[in-house]
Amino acid sequence: MNDKELQQLSINAIRATVIDTINKAKSGHPGMALGSAPIMYALFTRHLVADPNDPMWFNRDRFVLSAGHASSLLYTMLHVAGYKVSLEDLKSFRQLGSLTPGHPEFKHTAGVDATSGPLGQGIAQAVGMAMAERAIKAQYPQGKFVCDHYTYALCGDGCLQEGISQEAISLAGHQKLNKLILFYDSNAITLDGKLDLSFSENVKLRFKASGWNVLEVKDGNDVEAIDEAICKAKTSKSKPTLIIVQTVIGYGSAKQGTNKVHGSPLGDEDGANAKAFYGYKAQPFEIPSEVYKHFEDTFAKRGKEAHKQYEEALKVWKEAHSGAAKKLEKALAGDVSSYFKKEPKFASDDALASRNSSGKCLNELYNKIPFLMGGSADVAGSVMTKIDGGIDFTPRTAKGRNINWGIREFAMASAQNGMLLHGGVKTYVGCFLVFADYMKAAVRMAALSKLPAIYLFSHDSIAVGEDGPTHQPIETLAMLRSIPNCNVIRPCDSRETFAAWERALQSKETPTALILSRQNLPILGSKYKEVAKGAYVISKEAKRIDATLVATGSEVGLAIEAQKELLEKGIDVRVVSMPSWFDFENQSEEYKNEVFGICRCKRFAIEMLSTFGWHKYAAHVMGIDTFGASAPAKEVIKAFHFTKDDVVKFVLEGLAE
Amino acid sequence: MNDKELQQLSINAIRATVIDTINKAKSGHPGMALGSAPIMYALFTRHLVADPNDPMWFNRDRFVLSAGHASSLLYTMLHVAGYKVSLEDLKSFRQLGSLTPGHPEFKHTAGVDATSGPLGQGIAQAVGMAMAERAIKAQYPQGKFVCDHYTYALCGDGCLQEGISQEAISLAGHQKLNKLILFYDSNAITLDGKLDLSFSENVKLRFKASGWNVLEVKDGNDVEAIDEAICKAKTSKSKPTLIIVQTVIGYGSAKQGTNKVHGSPLGDEDGANAKAFYGYKAQPFEIPSEVYKHFEDTFAKRGKEAHKQYEEALKVWKEAHSGAAKKLEKALAGDVSSYFKKEPKFASDDALASRNSSGKCLNELYNKIPFLMGGSADVAGSVMTKIDGGIDFTPRTAKGRNINWGIREFAMASAQNGMLLHGGVKTYVGCFLVFADYMKAAVRMAALSKLPAIYLFSHDSIAVGEDGPTHQPIETLAMLRSIPNCNVIRPCDSRETFAAWERALQSKETPTALILSRQNLPILGSKYKEVAKGAYVISKEAKRIDATLVATGSEVGLAIEAQKELLEKGIDVRVVSMPSWFDFENQSEEYKNEVFGICRCKRFAIEMLSTFGWHKYAAHVMGIDTFGASAPAKEVIKAFHFTKDDVVKFVLEGLAE
Repeated sequence: MNDKELQQLSINAIRATVIDTINKAKSGHPGMALGSAPIMYALFTRHLVADPNDPMWFNRDRFVLSAGHASSLLYTMLHVAGYKVSLEDLKSFRQLGSLTPGHPEFKHTAGVDATSGPLGQGIAQAVGMAMAERAIKAQYPQGKFVCDHYTYALCGDGCLQEGISQEAISLAGHQKLNKLILFYDSNAITLDGKLDLSFSENVKLRFKASGWNVLEVKDGNDVEAIDEAICKAKTSKSKPTLIIVQTVIGYGSAKQGTNKVHGSPLGDEDGANAKAFYGYKAQPFEIPSEVYKHFEDTFAKRGKEAHKQYEEALKVWKEAHSGAAKKLEKALAGDVSSYFKKEPKFASDDALASRNSSGKCLNELYNKIPFLMGGSADVAGSVMTKIDGGIDFTPRTAKGRNINWGIREFAMASAQNGMLLHGGVKTYVGCFLVFADYMKAAVRMAALSKLPAIYLFSHDSIAVGEDGPTHQPIETLAMLRSIPNCNVIRPCDSRETFAAWERALQSKETPTALILSRQNLPILGSKYKEVAKGAYVISKEAKRIDATLVATGSEVGLAIEAQKELLEKGIDVRVVSMPSWFDFENQSEEYKNEVFGICRCKRFAIEMLSTFGWHKYAAHVMGIDTFGASAPAKEVIKAFHFTKDDVVKFVLEGLAE
Repeated sequence: MNDKELQQLSINAIRATVIDTINKAKSGHPGMALGSAPIMYALFTRHLVADPNDPMWFNRDRFVLSAGHASSLLYTMLHVAGYKVSLEDLKSFRQLGSLTPGHPEFKHTAGVDATSGPLGQGIAQAVGMAMAERAIKAQYPQGKFVCDHYTYALCGDGCLQEGISQEAISLAGHQKLNKLILFYDSNAITLDGKLDLSFSENVKLRFKASGWNVLEVKDGNDVEAIDEAICKAKTSKSKPTLIIVQTVIGYGSAKQGTNKVHGSPLGDEDGANAKAFYGYKAQPFEIPSEVYKHFEDTFAKRGKEAHKQYEEALKVWKEAHSGAAKKLEKALAGDVSSYFKKEPKFASDDALASRNSSGKCLNELYNKIPFLMGGSADVAGSVMTKIDGGIDFTPRTAKGRNINWGIREFAMASAQNGMLLHGGVKTYVGCFLVFADYMKAAVRMAALSKLPAIYLFSHDSIAVGEDGPTHQPIETLAMLRSIPNCNVIRPCDSRETFAAWERALQSKETPTALILSRQNLPILGSKYKEVAKGAYVISKEAKRIDATLVATGSEVGLAIEAQKELLEKGIDVRVVSMPSWFDFENQSEEYKNEVFGICRCKRFAIEMLSTFGWHKYAAHVMGIDTFGASAPAKEVIKAFHFTKDDVVKFVLEGLAE
């Protein structure tokens, strides 16, 4: 069999296996998977550097299937390429507990570099990976021995219609991420029909406008042309590259080129048709040994050799740079424990807004943790994400760790996911709390992908003041708290803010959102070590407990003020600071009851945001369930009845019920 | 005073008033407001057609200040242009209860056509307005007598960095919205510093790639050049137009051209400097009478005359088209009550997925309500938003009412807001529930702006099945329910689905989300008229109430099954269907208690989504607080313990506690 024949046999086998996999599951998206097969073939056999025996090898090329619905194709590639994805795994595609779920899941299937499916995010994740690659290379002496690889991604029309794609490509162009290569499977079909029902952009021009190279492959079955484009893309010195590949959706199906083949299995008959069209004669799930050998001889051989060479070179590097090697070890493990051996000293007991405490904390940690980097969506001076004297992360100063994300919240959060998927860095991003709305889908993705992302959300209530209801979060905190595996911490003072930062940085598989005030907060009787428990008694009752006041953030101080006045009125109240529901839920029932100290019917929760969700902990909830108002903070707070007197009244009335 | 002098005096007065307004409030964003003043001057005095005496005149040109932080400029314009915004209102800028809040608010201040501030959304709102304008013109005979105007918007760099801007401009270009004119105040500065910290796009090229005209004005103080560009833009036959205007941020301030003037008042000294720089000598808040007269002679005169002519022509039109005139009256009032005089007949009692019931309902209503239009984000065949035999809304078939929004959830929801801000249409948009995440900020904006938007969210639980956790909503329902003024309805069968549609269409100031199943749901003992109460007893207890099972959507049927088995075990349970928390909260305490029929401690809520928020109503909550799994729906449901046996066990154990 000559090379050309072997190539065709391989592509046929991949397509046939995609058909079989989806047919067996009676579920899946054959359309793009069949169209894109030659792209993946060219990438895997001729370019991608990765080691199927060590799928998490740090210096591998990354690949993100942004069009996650083409998962059958990725799983098939991983199978033939020698990853731990067996034929049996393919046969249990989309079945409970299988290694081959509907959309690719990071940490679930060997060789899957990113969870994907929600369209557009994969592009931003790839951008984040390419940023991490460049950053790490710059953060170490002779860093190319540590990290030096390409990041590839494959997207379709859906990804490019989503706005996050523009944020991501704009950022990538600005950052001149020349080692980022994005394939655009252009098949001119979407779920509802022809692409031109809704889309008539000149994609080439759009990418050029954002500073990308754009290459085109007119025939999606022309492996040589795809290969040539990749070769050219890899030589780019200062621009990311888009490779537009014209493909045929559902290639080989009787329904090819139509939306009918987008999201439904071909079925036995059409599947057989397609295989006949390819001239492919093997039985279902039968893959000729030549194909396995071909991938072993190309992809696996290249990857294993590269991996071996890397390890050898790294060994030499480590010997030459022992300090840096230690740093690298910690960075790769995401280990920051040594920085938290002692409870941090607090420079002052001044009343500080928690956004300022956070900024102070960050500035300290930044110097201690050399692989910590991050920034905000153009609100560095408001959310206090800027490092004093820090260097900006730019193409010229890639070792800089201050990232100017631009006014692109969604891509920022999603690219942070990419940086964490890549590994080797700790990251944070920031914006006003209310604009967490813009990035909700990426926060969910972090939680689902088990990434220890860090969000700094300041301006955390109506105390935003003059900017008014568009900028005042009400339900935003409930939104974040409701996300599974998302730790939302709203600290009440500097000490709790520092502790929240520790929680965030020590987290391995859970994203953490720090909810920070715009206004000053006095130092209260907070306890650093208790914060990790989610809730604790911050101000004890005098003798007996008549009621427990539960509060978070800026309302803890208010609760303590009210406590004093209530005592004067003969009501003995306990105050609980509850910075994190997530951490609290992980405590024992015993601890939970101990902290509250009284039955639910005598618990009073106060939070200057939506009451939504609080009734789990307290029968009486004081919050704000309407939109806010524009006025100086003090006026707004008064208008929404969040003064000491209001809290006192709230407790008295609740006890009288 | 010659024309040139009058023009300069007017612009100076506008700028001075912006400075005074912000200085008085000690809060606000002078930067862009000062830079953009000549754009607004040119627009108001020479082009914008609107009547200050009747700010809601239907055929006025629309104006959206997408960069809502420049509100002081808009308020100043409205003041000098003769709207009900007095000097006193300007003096109470950003104060409690004033007509001049921090960001513009629709229905709050006369002349404000859209709530704005969260960046990028204003562009999409303007796109929706331009779509509505075109649609309405096409929906009536000789429709240009009904609706024929321009839509203008002003944005800055922030708006264009947000991904939604790309979704919106791509859609506008595709729809060839030639009557849409967008000003880009290009001042090369953002909050954190110079724009090139984060942005290096060729904006001109990007807009061209999306099918826009692009015009450029090199000097933002050159009124004639701005005027010329607007004139040219207005002649466009098949493209929307972007006018890029190079401005100087904080023009006149000692800090002009820097980020220091972006979001902080100039203060007295610098304010005085700036006025001296302009050569403007009036006292603070003193505006020369010539300026008022100038606006009266230009803007107001033009608008009032146009309004008068329109009313006269419309009168003739109404006489000639009495049927259409009646339709128009209803359309303008958003009145659909006549279509709901009788409870609708149900064509069948077949088990239908609620997405299918919704599709059926929509198809009926579509024919009855000629001003109802909508569509989905490329999932028309899955969310059932497509009208059988309906015509697509395209540039060539503008009377078509099926909208192909493309895979642009955020812009879709935001443009729907624009269509409703415009008025004259009823609208709906649809996508999978989990992707409500992508449009959260626009749903919030609808709720805040009091727009009766309709969202069709299907695939509403883990019963999505094979697509797996990326596509299975868990916390999404809690997210939507937590938004103030947002009615979220999860119907349990076809009858409730029809009733939910009525609720949605009859709403005047509240957006409504219909939460629809992918899987079939049997017809239960549901009651059409009770749905509006939010919750009602759908299946009574046999004799006494031992417990109440509260459920929504697909779980109501499950609850009724469990009820039967529990009765066999001697436990007498009531089942409550609770399609809408929002509507339920508006009922009397008496009704609420009557429906539940038993104390909270014996209430059991079941919903195949997050438990978040349910504890308000029930002590025992059965839900899913982790991410889902990829497998056939039945398998997933079983794995997450949502079978009849699980519900029975849940109640028995809860009662034994």
